[in-house]
Formats: sequence, C-alpha cells, structure tokens
Amino acid sequence: MKVGFIGLGIMGSRMAANLQRAGHKLVVYNRTQAKADELVEKGAVRAQSVEEVAKQCRLVFTMLATPEAVEEVAVGPDGFLRALPGNSLWVDCSTVNPSFSQKMGHIARKMGQRFLYAPVSGSLVPAEKGELIFLVGGDAADLEQVRELLDVMGKSVVHAGENGQGASMKIVINMLLAQAMAAFSESLRLGTALGIAEETLCQTLLSTPAAAPFLKLKQQKLLNRDFSPEFPLEWMHKDLHLASITAYEQNIALPSLQTTKELYAQAKQQGFGEEDLSAIYKVFRPDA
Amino acid sequence: MKVGFIGLGIMGSRMAANLQRAGHKLVVYNRTQAKADELVEKGAVRAQSVEEVAKQCRLVFTMLATPEAVEEVAVGPDGFLRALPGNSLWVDCSTVNPSFSQKMGHIARKMGQRFLYAPVSGSLVPAEKGELIFLVGGDAADLEQVRELLDVMGKSVVHAGENGQGASMKIVINMLLAQAMAAFSESLRLGTALGIAEETLCQTLLSTPAAAPFLKLKQQKLLNRDFSPEFPLEWMHKDLHLASITAYEQNIALPSLQTTKELYAQAKQQGFGEEDLSAIYKVFRPDA
Amino acid sequence: MKVGFIGLGIMGSRMAANLQRAGHKLVVYNRTQAKADELVEKGAVRAQSVEEVAKQCRLVFTMLATPEAVEEVAVGPDGFLRALPGNSLWVDCSTVNPSFSQKMGHIARKMGQRFLYAPVSGSLVPAEKGELIFLVGGDAADLEQVRELLDVMGKSVVHAGENGQGASMKIVINMLLAQAMAAFSESLRLGTALGIAEETLCQTLLSTPAAAPFLKLKQQKLLNRDFSPEFPLEWMHKDLHLASITAYEQNIALPSLQTTKELYAQAKQQGFGEEDLSAIYKVFRPDA
Amino acid sequence: MKVGFIGLGIMGSRMAANLQRAGHKLVVYNRTQAKADELVEKGAVRAQSVEEVAKQCRLVFTMLATPEAVEEVAVGPDGFLRALPGNSLWVDCSTVNPSFSQKMGHIARKMGQRFLYAPVSGSLVPAEKGELIFLVGGDAADLEQVRELLDVMGKSVVHAGENGQGASMKIVINMLLAQAMAAFSESLRLGTALGIAEETLCQTLLSTPAAAPFLKLKQQKLLNRDFSPEFPLEWMHKDLHLASITAYEQNIALPSLQTTKELYAQAKQQGFGEEDLSAIYKVFRPDA
Repeated sequence: MKVGFIGLGIMGSRMAANLQRAGHKLVVYNRTQAKADELVEKGAVRAQSVEEVAKQCRLVFTMLATPEAVEEVAVGPDGFLRALPGNSLWVDCSTVNPSFSQKMGHIARKMGQRFLYAPVSGSLVPAEKGELIFLVGGDAADLEQVRELLDVMGKSVVHAGENGQGASMKIVINMLLAQAMAAFSESLRLGTALGIAEETLCQTLLSTPAAAPFLKLKQQKLLNRDFSPEFPLEWMHKDLHLASITAYEQNIALPSLQTTKELYAQAKQQGFGEEDLSAIYKVFRPDA
Repeated sequence: MKVGFIGLGIMGSRMAANLQRAGHKLVVYNRTQAKADELVEKGAVRAQSVEEVAKQCRLVFTMLATPEAVEEVAVGPDGFLRALPGNSLWVDCSTVNPSFSQKMGHIARKMGQRFLYAPVSGSLVPAEKGELIFLVGGDAADLEQVRELLDVMGKSVVHAGENGQGASMKIVINMLLAQAMAAFSESLRLGTALGIAEETLCQTLLSTPAAAPFLKLKQQKLLNRDFSPEFPLEWMHKDLHLASITAYEQNIALPSLQTTKELYAQAKQQGFGEEDLSAIYKVFRPDA
Repeated sequence: MKVGFIGLGIMGSRMAANLQRAGHKLVVYNRTQAKADELVEKGAVRAQSVEEVAKQCRLVFTMLATPEAVEEVAVGPDGFLRALPGNSLWVDCSTVNPSFSQKMGHIARKMGQRFLYAPVSGSLVPAEKGELIFLVGGDAADLEQVRELLDVMGKSVVHAGENGQGASMKIVINMLLAQAMAAFSESLRLGTALGIAEETLCQTLLSTPAAAPFLKLKQQKLLNRDFSPEFPLEWMHKDLHLASITAYEQNIALPSLQTTKELYAQAKQQGFGEEDLSAIYKVFRPDA
Repeated sequence: MKVGFIGLGIMGSRMAANLQRAGHKLVVYNRTQAKADELVEKGAVRAQSVEEVAKQCRLVFTMLATPEAVEEVAVGPDGFLRALPGNSLWVDCSTVNPSFSQKMGHIARKMGQRFLYAPVSGSLVPAEKGELIFLVGGDAADLEQVRELLDVMGKSVVHAGENGQGASMKIVINMLLAQAMAAFSESLRLGTALGIAEETLCQTLLSTPAAAPFLKLKQQKLLNRDFSPEFPLEWMHKDLHLASITAYEQNIALPSLQTTKELYAQAKQQGFGEEDLSAIYKVFRPDA
C-alpha cells in the first residue's frame, strides 16, 4: 500500500526518509519540487499536485508549517481531501491549534474520511534519528492502523485522547518554555546591570530551583552569543500565537502569555526570527 | 559586648533567639513590645526606643518588613543611627532594593558609621533552625567582625561583593520564581480548559525540562487548593515591586516582570496576599 | 433581480428590512429560522439552506458574527459560493480581519465569483435608520453595482481601496477606542483610591485634552454603574482579537493592544461580555 | 522678606525670574552654580548651600527633578529643613508621588515647619509666561500666604485638598496622556502596515471621537519625524514610574499603565529620552 507524504521541509523530509528506509512505498509532494528529489531518486513517486497524491493513496501524512498551509492543502479549492477514496486516513503532523485540528477532523469526517492529529515533540535531530515523540489525538482504531509507521519515525507514541488533545498538550508545554526563556533573559539583564558578572549570574541562577532545567542547555548560547537555531525563535512565536488564539476561543485571559508573545514578536521584528529562541535575550541587550 | 536587634517579626525573633542561645547579650526593640517578651524573659534588655538600643551597643542588627521601615528606624527624625557611638557597625538583614541599600550605606558612612547589608535566603523554618543563607554586600573586614554571629543564624555566608550586590542577587532569583509560578498557572489554566485533567497536566508538565524544579513542591498545594503560606504572596509582590523600581533606576525595560507583578497585585487585591505565592493560580480560576 | 441576504441578527435583520422597504425582492436565510419570519411575512422568500439562496440570486449579502461563521457559510462543505451562478457578486458586511477578507476575495475569484468587503461603522440605531457608514474594499465597478443598495442601508459609502482596507480602518479605530476606555478606567481607579471623588475626577479628566471625546458619552454610565450595552464588551473583545491576529500576520509587536485585550478578556470572564464596553471599569473595581 | 528658591532648571529658573521681576528679593541655590548667574546679576543673593538659603529665609520654594533630589535637599544630612527658623513655610513645586509628598509634610511638621505641595501643570512656555497652573495640596492658610507669589508664576491656582491630592490629580492626567500617545502610535503602526497612508490614517483617526484632542498637536511631529521636545519623554517615563509606585502603595493592579511604562522605558533605552514624548512612535517603527 502506498503512503502519501505532503510537506518535505526540515522535519517532513527526514520523517519521510525514515518511512522509505523502512520499506514503505511513498507518493510525495512538496511545493518546491526540488525538495522531493532525493526521495524520488530512491524510489518515491513524485506527484505534481496534492490531488495526484490523493488519487494514488488511502493513507496521507501532512507535515506543514502553519494551519493556513494545512487548510489550503487539505480543504482548499484544490485540496486533496475530496480526491481521496472514501474512508481513507489523513494523519496531520503539523503543529496547529486545538480548535483548528478539531475543525479539520470535523470536515474530514463530513467528507467521508478519517482523521488523526499527530503532532511531534522534538526537532531536527530526533526527526532524523526517528526519535520523535508523537502526541496523538483521535480514534484508537485509526491510531492502530498507523502505529507501525509512527514507530518508524518516533521513539514513543502517546495517545492523548480525542481530537485536539495532542495539540493542547504541545501548546501548554511550549508556553512554559517560552516564558521561562524570557524570564531568565530578564533576570540576566537586570542582574548584569547591577554589576554581577554574566557568568556568575548564570551559574547561580541555574543552581537554584527557580530555573527550568532546559535553560542549562541554553547557557552556552547565551554566554557566547551563539544563537544558531536549535528551535527557531519564529516557530516559538507562532506557537505562542496559536496558544493565544486558543485562549481567546476558551474565553481565558492569560496576560503573561501575551506579554511574552510580544517580546518574541519584537525579536522577530529585529531580525532574530531564524535564530534560536534564546535570541530573545538580545531584545533586552541592544548593546550586546 | 552587647548586640542590638531591631525588628522581631517572624524572621527577626527567631534569628535573635539563636544569637541569645549562643550566649550573646542582646538589647532588643520591636514596635509591638510584646514580641520582645520571650527574649527579655531569657535575659535580653528591652529598649523603649531605637535610640536606646543605639546608646547601649556598637553593633546593631535590623530585620524589618520594608525599605520604608528601615529608613524610618535608621535615619528618620528619631532614627538610631545618629545615637550610635562613632564607627559602630549596622547590619541590615531586611529585604530591600539595591539602590536603597547603597543609600543606607552612604548615609551611614557620612554619619561616621559602618554598614553591612546582609539579606537572607530562606524563610521561617531555616530561620528557626539557624540554616539561613546570608548574601552579604559590604567590606570584607566588617563581615569578618560579624561572621561568627552570622554563622549562628545561618548555614552559609556568601560575600557577594560590595554594597548592594547581595540585594541584587536576591531580587533576580525571586523574579524568576514569581514568573515561573505565574507561567505554570497559566499553562495549567489553558490545559484544563482544553479538557486535560489537572493532575495529568501537572504531572506531564513537571516531567518536562520546561518546568522549574521548585514547582514540584507546589504541585500538591495547587491540586488540593491548599494555599497555606510557605512564602506569602504579598512578600513576593513586594519583591517584584523592588525589582521593578530597580529596573527603573537602571533604565531597563522588563515587560514580563511588570505583567507578572500586576498579576500578583490582582491576587492581593482579591484577598490572597497572606496565602502562599502559589495562590496566584486562583487569579486564573475564579471558579475554583 | 432577487437579492440574497444571509445572517439576520441585530444588524442584518435591520439592514435587510431597509432593503425590503425600498422595494428589493429578498431571498433570506438565518440559522435560527424564526428570525426570518418578519421579512418573509412581508414578501421575502425563505431559503432552507444557503445553497438555496445561491440558486436564486446573483447578488448575496452576508452579515455574520465571526470570520469562522463567514467561512463556513461561504466556502465550507455546504457553502453557498459554489452554488452561485458564475460571475455573481458576494458582499460581506461582517466585521472580520483584513487577511481573512483578502482570503475570501481570493477564494471567490478562484471560484469564478466577484467579492466586495463592506463592513459597517455604526451599531443598532444607525442600522435601523439606514444611517450606517460603509467602509468598502474591492473593485470600483463592483461597488457601483451595489451602491444604490448600500445607500438604502447607510448614509455614506467610503471606498477605502482594495480588498482588506475597509477592514483595516475599522480595526485601528476600535483599537483606539478600547484602549482609551481602559486607560480612563485605570486613571479613575487610581484617582479615587487617592481620595478624589469619582465625579470630580471624571469632570476634571474630561476637561483636559488627554481624554478622548467619546468618553464624555460614557461618563454617566460609569458614574451610575449603568452598563446597559451600546457597544457590547464582547464585540470589542472580538475586534481586539482580530487586531491581534492582524498584528501577528504583519509581524508587528503591539504590547498595549495585547494588554488591553486581556483586560477585556478578564471582563468577559467575569460575566460582563454582554454589557457595554465601559463595563471594563468593573475589572478595576471588584468592590463597585 | 526674602524668598528662597532651590532648583533652577528649565522650570525653576523661569519661575524664579518671574518672582524677581515682580519685585521679590530672592536667595537662590542650584547645584550647578552657573544656572544662578542671571538671577544673581539682577540682584538675587547666591547661597553656597541649601542651609545658607534656610538661614536667610522663612519661605523656601523647591523645584527639583525627582523625589530623591527633594529628599536629599530637604531632609538629608545637609538638608535645609533643620536650618530653617521654626514655623517657616516650605513650598515644593517638584513633581513627586502623593505618598512622598505626604511624607515630606509629615517630616516638616515634626521638625516644626509648615509645608505646601504645589506641583504645576504646564511646561517651558507657560513657565516663562507666568501661565502655569498650580495644583495645591495643604492648609488653606498656608496657601493664602503664598497665593500672591503663585499668581506671579501662574495663571490659576487650584486648591485640590489636603496634602498629596495635587500630586494625585497630576499623576492621573499624565497616565492618560501617556497611554493615549502610545495607543495612537500602535494604531498608526498597524494601519500603515496594512497599506493605508500615514497621513490619511492620522487624519481619519483624529476625526473620530476615539482620539484624545492633544494628539492633534502631535500630528505634525509624527508625520515629520520631528521629535524636538515639548514634554520630554523621560519626564513622562518618570511620571509613569511615580504612578506605578502609587498604585503599588494603594494595592491596585493597573496592567495597562505598566505595559505603557515599559514602552517608554524601551524608548528611553533606545536613546529617545530627551526627545518629545511622541517619540514613543519610534519604538514601533525601527525602520523610520
């Protein structure tokens, strides 16, 4: 059975390569066609449009940058969903907001298809090594159908519950990460202004229970002003935006989230979007 | 040699008791006189005013609630500083902002006195057990004069540098604590609104490197809605206020700090000031 | 020629009634069918679905509550757009964000239809009296086709430019209104806390050039705690949300907008959503 | 009777000159002595210290930049207050926060002196023309003693109430100004990003009741990027800081105030402190 794969960016290309390596026959599509070349050379079928993917498969993965991209590809005027044979399975691995994921599920079912939302925790390196964590929302039976394939791309699969709950968990974790990074940057800024050496300050703060453990991994980036991307700042900004939309939909005020989001927006505005999220520190250090 | 001790609240009374237990002769003063009774029964001299303390001692400790209180007691119209014999040593253990501490040092020296700023890390229990951490700013020679006494009250003494740097370190640590607590509360609020159980959410978030370790200690308080104070919310609010003043003095914009401060202000306004700082969660859960 | 009208809420029902009164033959649809009864009694054709509207008309107005509702009705699986005869004209009067309006125009054109975005400034009373202001974005020729109908429903028509610019102007005006209302409430709160009488304060502030003129109209509401809706707070919250999404799309940080939005969210959370937007004052006065 | 005048900056020098012109004999002091030269040439007595002022006068005006400066000059170790003959009158015209003003009054009375707080509304030009507005807090009898002198320097005198209420009124007006300026800048930023011309946008916004009248005066500054100071941005930042401290003292959460304050802090950090407060616009336009 052929597997469709739409979206071959940093993450998608590596995930698809792992499926291919495990012996799965792929039909692939990417807007920039060149990104499919390597997979095609190794035997994947190149589709000229997402409809063409749909006509050859009953199982389609998507791994795209934004909800807007997912929507256009799936249910836009030239979307693949209506070209799929009835009762096929669409698995979306893109990071989107919970309500969007629910909406996609709703539309898919209305069109006679099945839908699984399976966002991943982990970035480039785990994608390459097949060590992603899948946070799946949707029917258990649908999950069983693809579990083998997820196991090829990841090291663990969490069935978070119904549609949308995978997305929810992902969003709240990233909210926490983003705020810890910004708060740490503010503490560092104030402390150094008061005359404490940056390194002393980092070490002291990181030795207290007030600092989130992942900040230890960012210490060298901060001290060396080396902001090469592990998790691009603009992705985090997007996730904060999705969290913000979700809070609106849930009728919840989350002031810290919003303030943090605007700090990332400033960082992006200042040109740090493609650097690591720790580049948020530079917003507080126009001098550095 | 007699030791003066001004301010016998939750912290000061326990610190003074430890000095007394170690054989030091105390002259004590507290606005509410009854708080001195226990120490007086065990041999301390009760002073009727802070000037009276100053007339009997060449070493005075202060442990007061706010910078305003310190100022009034030390350099106000009836302050003790001008009643001290020349070249005496004043040790302030109150939590104040760095510039205030520097100002006190400046005034003290102008008046011919020596000054050490020695705020503590740790609350009620460590104060009682003599296990506080002193973050001292000031002259090394002055520190040596009182080191033995600090060792009686605490388990370690850090000489942070010149005047003000003890205060600086304390403030940035508390900024980080306050923001982590608020961000965690927001994540919890959004996650539960999206249908994830509060306990599941707590456990998952706390298992990720995005959550500051001290949050593990707050988990049961949050889940049981038991906000009995370990670190009163209003003290944290005060510390955020001092950090905010310090940022102003340093000409630094710290938007997250400010937003967090206002959340603690709201909590205080809603009557949670004397509860644990984790009661900030209730701002997000008017229902709970 | 029959005119389709979808969405007969507070605004839509009055706009449609004005068209009918002017002699236009309507085909109407509303999810809650009863809202169409009055128009039907006076001669309008009741459609059972939006597709049915599309099959009978070559000109369709929509006046709906949210972008989501517009999207579902127009381009969802049962949307009316694909049921319209080619080269028909769709006029959307709902308040949506600029990019959404552009997207609708894009989709409509792809499906061979024409699109005009024509949001209104003015609420219930102007809608009833036919005194709305239309801020139109789109082709001049398309505007000419419907100008007569807009003149029936409104007192003036501004051609703001291409698609999206009507929406843009509306959003920035509302941003300004919302922030002035919140800032005034904060000033009032602080001033009264400092012992100045609420009425004195209102009068003094309103006499300075620091206060936006519309606040004069809100003075009595504030002083009498009479928050009966002129412009419901939850609509303003929605507009701030749309502004926020737009800022994200434009890659712009707007911290004040976000903080204000969260204040309206808190007001809504506290149950003031259906009251006048001036009820934001109650967020600052839990006592009042 | 000689009148003491301490603080001869932009405002104080002009106010003192008006007193001199009206025939009053002055004893003047300024830290930078050269600023007193002009007054001295015209007959004022130059004091070498503030104590010297106090020894020659029973009425002293102060016009200083910050509460800290007022405190040092009045009640610091070399302050003038204790050198004044008993029952003299001190009139402070500096902009300070309400609680600070109350504290000064308290200390002055304790030291046997009288105190009037008389901040001014109006900047350079009104100071020069003797057209300031005095917002006086304190005893009516004390006010009567100096009313003639205030009339020389200003065009109207408002007796706001007891000590502190002059300061309160000033602070809430400035809060409103600062927020209107920031909100207008944000609206302008978003609107231009959406393709509306800056001039069109300004005109349209200023024609609506959503825009505070003083913004009309700032329009040309914004459009011409001419930020020569009428009201320096850093003074507004200071006033927001004082408002923020006051809110803390009153136990009130004012999130918009704080966010606005941080925007002015950013502007100051970026070097716009001495420009007009409308330079806040540049924070949103790193490009302009």
